[in-house]
Amino acid sequence: MTEVSRRKLLIGAATVSAVAAAGPMLATSSASATGAAAGKQAPGFYRYKVGEFELTQIADGARTFPMPDGFVKNVDKVLALAAAEAAYMPKGQVTVPFNPVIVNTGSKLVLIDTGYGPGIAPSVGLLLVNMAAAGIDPKAIDIVVLSHLHPDHINGVKTADGALAFPNAEIMAPAQDWGFWMSDDNMGKAPNDMMKNYFANTRKILADIAGKVTKYDWGKEVAPGVTALDASGHTPGHTAFAVASGSARILVQSDVTNIPELFLRNPDWHVAFDVDAEKAAQTRHKFYDMAAAEKALIAGFHFSFPSLGHVEKDGGSYRLVPIRWNPVI
Amino acid sequence: MTEVSRRKLLIGAATVSAVAAAGPMLATSSASATGAAAGKQAPGFYRYKVGEFELTQIADGARTFPMPDGFVKNVDKVLALAAAEAAYMPKGQVTVPFNPVIVNTGSKLVLIDTGYGPGIAPSVGLLLVNMAAAGIDPKAIDIVVLSHLHPDHINGVKTADGALAFPNAEIMAPAQDWGFWMSDDNMGKAPNDMMKNYFANTRKILADIAGKVTKYDWGKEVAPGVTALDASGHTPGHTAFAVASGSARILVQSDVTNIPELFLRNPDWHVAFDVDAEKAAQTRHKFYDMAAAEKALIAGFHFSFPSLGHVEKDGGSYRLVPIRWNPVI
Repeated sequence: MTEVSRRKLLIGAATVSAVAAAGPMLATSSASATGAAAGKQAPGFYRYKVGEFELTQIADGARTFPMPDGFVKNVDKVLALAAAEAAYMPKGQVTVPFNPVIVNTGSKLVLIDTGYGPGIAPSVGLLLVNMAAAGIDPKAIDIVVLSHLHPDHINGVKTADGALAFPNAEIMAPAQDWGFWMSDDNMGKAPNDMMKNYFANTRKILADIAGKVTKYDWGKEVAPGVTALDASGHTPGHTAFAVASGSARILVQSDVTNIPELFLRNPDWHVAFDVDAEKAAQTRHKFYDMAAAEKALIAGFHFSFPSLGHVEKDGGSYRLVPIRWNPVI
Repeated sequence: MTEVSRRKLLIGAATVSAVAAAGPMLATSSASATGAAAGKQAPGFYRYKVGEFELTQIADGARTFPMPDGFVKNVDKVLALAAAEAAYMPKGQVTVPFNPVIVNTGSKLVLIDTGYGPGIAPSVGLLLVNMAAAGIDPKAIDIVVLSHLHPDHINGVKTADGALAFPNAEIMAPAQDWGFWMSDDNMGKAPNDMMKNYFANTRKILADIAGKVTKYDWGKEVAPGVTALDASGHTPGHTAFAVASGSARILVQSDVTNIPELFLRNPDWHVAFDVDAEKAAQTRHKFYDMAAAEKALIAGFHFSFPSLGHVEKDGGSYRLVPIRWNPVI
């Protein structure tokens, strides 16, 4: 498979041009005063406590690409571009970050979502690199929980040679999403290339390891203290998680919103990747109304690293207040 | 000198209780699933480019302490506490981060401000640790520029044994601040213990190395591409910096505001540490009106790490929009 067709498979036709365009932004620094290591970014991990649990946000990376037509399905592109530019994204472009979470319950090491895996772009697929920086051995992961079966969440379960990236982990997938994406009937009815590619990718990544995958349902613990919550709409089985230890709690929201700069500020905007965008918007309002009322800490897969914050109501909209970085844990 | 009196000397009587109170928050994690390094926070450095220059934000740390009476001089403490709590600080407490900047111009390695140095609290004085993580050798620093002569900006010029932390660097101090803090006449007129301690600390840290200190004036370059800007009020010589390479520019604001959660949202509030609070507030408005108009990137010593963002006008107030973390440079 050529690099281009692999990219196309994984990310969908609509965003192929994005990968190439991101190239020039990744140039290595040339600053070179003696004694200063140049060009290397800090490792992308961030530790914090939730009760007795220790959590680590791990950056899989971020992509900046020209905003494709239809990135926001139900508003004029001019408005979507204006929102991105108002959030200081490069003119005409959009930045999407990807941030899995590791929960150390003391007895189990649980990875929620796996990032893009290898081969997409130099700026993503960094999960294993950043886990290494955090001192977390992939072989030590006990449970991999997938929030839903989109490529940026599942492809990291495999390494470049197709081996399991977390060889000792049970893999857990939402039953509703497994049913949807693995249905040949649904695949036959895929309405566009992006969806066709998503169906094909789910099979490519998960079909040969189906026997290792446990399907989970909402309302139950997928690991000690980690409860699966119905957050459907983005996909039929899209799941958020409540991670609780003692009286402390965090909501791992997965993709309740894609990038907050667009879809939290404008909760009724529909991102291209939603399977049922109307339902996704309803879920968004319900989830953030609840989270704002209880002042819940939220981990957002598509929030900027360290991808943690509180969400507040702002009229009919919402705003994200990122956490303050704690230099010691 | 006892530990308590040293603390008192360095940080002023008003905040002594804070250091002790911060202790319990620094407990090491006990999470212990096999194969996951527990308790260690990611190194606090962040790299980015400004034109051809490579800059690195370096965390010296952060302190969380019970808000002292008079922390905000001109409003009721109830209001100040409410603002802190609205920003998700622990009830009754306030968090203040400290973040120096290193500018690599390609020919010169310039450190702007030095943090608290050793001996204050385990959560601060981390500059050298985080520089090491970033691969920057203290011996390679060519120029140390002090924005003003408060302890959290100057004390890091010395190590625990009193040696120079950056032995090969020229040290540059604002002429106006040097004149103010080194004047015995001014010291004799110090209006409170905090100010007395600041005068004593300036002497303790800088008197024996006065011959190595170059005084700089506003409107001139202190290093190639780094121009000193009059931002007086917080102290008589308080200085911000414009760092420019080609058409790219960043404003290193130093203490134009202390923590933005309180003093950017409420630009007319007076922080306890201001020498001339009215003038500091005028400087604040002037600086942010200009920065907002030109959509300037700003590095803020007391912003949360990585302490970079854009400031926007919000009626008569301002808000900080933190940058998105770039996983690669």
